[in-house]
Amino acid sequence: MSHHPDKFQTRLERLAEALDSGAMDQVRRLLNRGLAPVDVARVLESTPPRERELLWEQVDIAAQGEVLQYLNEDIQGTFLTHMDAPRVVEATEPLDNDDAADLLQQLPYARLQEVLDVMPVERRARLEAVLSYPEDTAGGLMDTNTVTIRADVSLEVVLRYLRRHKRLPESTDNLLVVSRRFELIGALPINRILVSDPSVTVREVMDTDIVTINALTHEDEVASVFERQDLISAPVISLDNRLLGRITIDDVVDVIRENAAQTMMNMGGLEDEEDTFAPVLRTSRRRAVWLGINLLAATVVSIAIGFFEDTIQQIAALAVLMPIVSSMGGIAGSQTLTVLIRGISLGHVSGANVRWLLVRELMAGTLNGLVWAVVVAVMAIARFQDYLLGGIIAMAMVINLMVAALIGTLIPIALKKLAIDPALSGGVLLTTITDIVGFVALLGLATIFYF
Amino acid sequence: MSHHPDKFQTRLERLAEALDSGAMDQVRRLLNRGLAPVDVARVLESTPPRERELLWEQVDIAAQGEVLQYLNEDIQGTFLTHMDAPRVVEATEPLDNDDAADLLQQLPYARLQEVLDVMPVERRARLEAVLSYPEDTAGGLMDTNTVTIRADVSLEVVLRYLRRHKRLPESTDNLLVVSRRFELIGALPINRILVSDPSVTVREVMDTDIVTINALTHEDEVASVFERQDLISAPVISLDNRLLGRITIDDVVDVIRENAAQTMMNMGGLEDEEDTFAPVLRTSRRRAVWLGINLLAATVVSIAIGFFEDTIQQIAALAVLMPIVSSMGGIAGSQTLTVLIRGISLGHVSGANVRWLLVRELMAGTLNGLVWAVVVAVMAIARFQDYLLGGIIAMAMVINLMVAALIGTLIPIALKKLAIDPALSGGVLLTTITDIVGFVALLGLATIFYF
Repeated sequence: MSHHPDKFQTRLERLAEALDSGAMDQVRRLLNRGLAPVDVARVLESTPPRERELLWEQVDIAAQGEVLQYLNEDIQGTFLTHMDAPRVVEATEPLDNDDAADLLQQLPYARLQEVLDVMPVERRARLEAVLSYPEDTAGGLMDTNTVTIRADVSLEVVLRYLRRHKRLPESTDNLLVVSRRFELIGALPINRILVSDPSVTVREVMDTDIVTINALTHEDEVASVFERQDLISAPVISLDNRLLGRITIDDVVDVIRENAAQTMMNMGGLEDEEDTFAPVLRTSRRRAVWLGINLLAATVVSIAIGFFEDTIQQIAALAVLMPIVSSMGGIAGSQTLTVLIRGISLGHVSGANVRWLLVRELMAGTLNGLVWAVVVAVMAIARFQDYLLGGIIAMAMVINLMVAALIGTLIPIALKKLAIDPALSGGVLLTTITDIVGFVALLGLATIFYF
Repeated sequence: MSHHPDKFQTRLERLAEALDSGAMDQVRRLLNRGLAPVDVARVLESTPPRERELLWEQVDIAAQGEVLQYLNEDIQGTFLTHMDAPRVVEATEPLDNDDAADLLQQLPYARLQEVLDVMPVERRARLEAVLSYPEDTAGGLMDTNTVTIRADVSLEVVLRYLRRHKRLPESTDNLLVVSRRFELIGALPINRILVSDPSVTVREVMDTDIVTINALTHEDEVASVFERQDLISAPVISLDNRLLGRITIDDVVDVIRENAAQTMMNMGGLEDEEDTFAPVLRTSRRRAVWLGINLLAATVVSIAIGFFEDTIQQIAALAVLMPIVSSMGGIAGSQTLTVLIRGISLGHVSGANVRWLLVRELMAGTLNGLVWAVVVAVMAIARFQDYLLGGIIAMAMVINLMVAALIGTLIPIALKKLAIDPALSGGVLLTTITDIVGFVALLGLATIFYF
């Protein structure tokens, strides 16, 4: 296998040694000859800021574009902002149009214009075609470099035409058949050229029922189409059916990966393209916002508890048991929330079946509420020798797990309707409510039954 | 675009209507003619169990294999177990070997043997070749259907050979060049056949520096290789370099997607291939385990609070403020944990830089601890008119956020060393510790300063 994780680690260590001992010649050799661009990017991403700058300066300009392409956006932005316009042009020159456009999008608008100004005219036009679409649409993902043919020629002619190319664009699995007005009328799979009689015309063997993607389609929708149809590439067209470019599976894989990372990072209130080695101040500032939102939620919970200060003063055991009721509600609610978020994102949940889901969740919540209420009641009675307290915490548990099932189902549906990502804010909202319900149920029931 | 989400919703509604009114003829027509197999699968996944059974019975046997392939494992298992062996063979007949093997793996061992026994000999041999590898390895992912050629023939001969095929296997971007002993010696990109002079030999134009994958490589590693090298397909070889099959990008996309879903579901203690419409009892049973683990953690927290029952009895305000300290610690710790888990999974974190990360996290934690401690102290003083209480909660906050940074960094590294998935158990472990530290700091400091 040409991919050796162990070899990579060894090289990483040798690189660190060379850097420590100041042997810059060796650093340069290791970076530029020993490693593929994707590995150089990984080395840079794995290095704290100060040494990272040093390493970056040793990367050959010819390789910088390729390396940049594999870095996360945080670092792309930092490096690009420190390069002057001609250098950016030089570094991105070896890249495909779509990849170059992705990179340039990390630049502030004014800098981007400077870079475009010093670029060869044809390249500039191609890049602007991609840059004119939002980054998260098919237009922003597409490569404008396509191989097009006419319908009325024979495969023999196509073969002769192809032999004039030195190589075809990467991931070319289809030749695109266009009209004189550059309207897309079909696709000819490369494999079909190979297995067909050379004398037939393109029209006779081309596919006309092809999957095309509108330039303004959102990238998530693009990923879903690729996945469902097992595509390698797909043509991108304008509203009037003109061919604009094509999207290839490697870019779609990036979208899928980024979305996955995004969900996980967003649940913690973090940026998905964050540099693992971001400096202290940037890290603290970004996280502070989420902590502030959480403080707001915790304060509301605290105010709810405040109403029962007298009850707690009388029965301190309640304060000891409080976290059990709230955390069980939080966990049960999160389970429901997660299943619903996944169901929604897979397109399973609709008006027709949401009532079934709500009933199922309520029944499962009640069942688990009853089971664990008994366990907790026994523990509470054993600890405090108080049967009433056992009964109260059991009741509070069942109430909280039922409410958790109810709002765990409704929150993602409501947030979805409001066009808010449930993965981002659903968790805080849910645990705030289950905390309040858990505490109020426990302390409220105690207030009623003891006084 | 041939993919119309709105049209899908309309069909779904018409299907529901037809099912409700018992018009089974219409249901059959809608299912078997109106929808692609992937969409039928989505309909089934979006339908509660009872109607799902009814719908499934209306799907033509010829289409059942394709539909099954797109269903989640939970439902695959249910449907397959209810089919007899000859029916399973008939339904899976149109599938590629790797896809058929994937499905059959959902059957219990005895049933799998029954199915293999009634299968045509050649198919059985090919399936057994795939089934002999664990499901999560390259061998379990591969398709044994490859197009192989010899090195010494001319491209002209290759072209003539290819024309004898009616079609090439899907995602064929390379012809694999093998020796007489079926050792892999090179790959010939399809595109290169098209742009090369037909009279040259395969050996002259083939690639010899190709990415190959060992059959026992883990699927995550396979996905990482595909992603890093932007592959469409890759040959799978045995330890002695013999060609066994090939893996294509569509299977790798499935692996990437499943991994992403898995992380999210596992964080809630849920199965990743769970049926959205699993029945109540199965749902409750699966979730109960996770709730039990959480109850254990909550009990430990509760015992810690129990040591300070007398203090709470004296100052009930502490019970009111408790959730603020613990939840801020939990959030800050989760942020650190998430960044570390992502850093580890991207291969950024190593012995060389973990100290840098720990220092950064501690500094960021302290900074945010100080900022929010002031805010919380001011709120506490305003609420309870008690400066000492304000000072105590501020100190508890700073302590808890520092500890959160420390253990948020160390937990994933420790779990990784123990070969435990940090995404699965890291969260509970972390919040249990931040809860205990938060409560003990607040109540302990109060005990010291007030008595």
